Amino acid sequence: MKSHREETKSREIIFNGSLIDVEVQEVYLPDGNTSRRELVYHPGAVAVIAFTEEGKLILVKQYRKALQKAIAEIPAGKLENKESPEKCARRELEEETGLRAASMTKLLSFYTSPGFADEIVHLFLADSLTAGDSGTDDDEFVERVDVTFEEAKKMIESGEIHDAKTAYAVQYWELLQTRSK
Amino acid sequence: MKSHREETKSREIIFNGSLIDVEVQEVYLPDGNTSRRELVYHPGAVAVIAFTEEGKLILVKQYRKALQKAIAEIPAGKLENKESPEKCARRELEEETGLRAASMTKLLSFYTSPGFADEIVHLFLADSLTAGDSGTDDDEFVERVDVTFEEAKKMIESGEIHDAKTAYAVQYWELLQTRSK
Repeated sequence: MKSHREETKSREIIFNGSLIDVEVQEVYLPDGNTSRRELVYHPGAVAVIAFTEEGKLILVKQYRKALQKAIAEIPAGKLENKESPEKCARRELEEETGLRAASMTKLLSFYTSPGFADEIVHLFLADSLTAGDSGTDDDEFVERVDVTFEEAKKMIESGEIHDAKTAYAVQYWELLQTRSK
Repeated sequence: MKSHREETKSREIIFNGSLIDVEVQEVYLPDGNTSRRELVYHPGAVAVIAFTEEGKLILVKQYRKALQKAIAEIPAGKLENKESPEKCARRELEEETGLRAASMTKLLSFYTSPGFADEIVHLFLADSLTAGDSGTDDDEFVERVDVTFEEAKKMIESGEIHDAKTAYAVQYWELLQTRSK
């Protein structure tokens, strides 16, 4: 199939932040015309599906300034200092929940907003959890919440769970349950 | 539970684009310290899960400049001129695939990147498709690809399907199949 590749005609750097960079490009379209692309660059992130011994899904509730509200998400965080996604997943799980995973299995990766951003989330399944050290980043205020499947479904309806990676995780959980029946 | 709300101390507008706006805020943390938030505002979007009469999932392949590659996604697009998500879903499905849906059912909404962006995707399930008018936006070059479930799974492994909404859609499809067994 055709790739419809868009070559860059010109670029303007708008912003170099500590989390994201922003750029505007003028690109050539396949028909020779040009168009404008507003692009956000992000270092990438990990997210972790982890269950307690009682079979509850581990979430962390966190205020998200972009949304002007707190939501409950699976443990997650951005890649730092070129660490591997697996190492990042182990670090974020321990920082946010105080738990260490003997096993950390990669499920898949997905881009969150391909229309304007290159942010990719690497999703892991953690297993065999034991207590580790808990210590959050200085500017992170998170609260751990363990939920049953029924609670998770209600939280999707109410908007307490409201992001793509956590919606994917809850659906993954539903699939696990349906398979085991 | 505590909301850990972050009040805005100051804000600086970095960019007002045609797709996104970017802002940097200094916010008060719950402990009284301050932190910096880099925020991207987006109008919101819709995405549509639609199957052909033969039971194939309808995807559109599109070059994504942010990713520097073409990926196959479920039909999607951003909300325009304050239209309702359902109207937008019907418009985008027809623009990108030439199909009209007699029934358009809302499944859920999710924020794609709550750590820095307010983009929300409203996900719909289309049903009872008929041929309509096909006409893409001037700067959109998309190619429709209908895939079986096995093809979709392979495309996730190869990275041809590589975004959150489409990964969610394929998992939704797997759940539908598992339920009906």
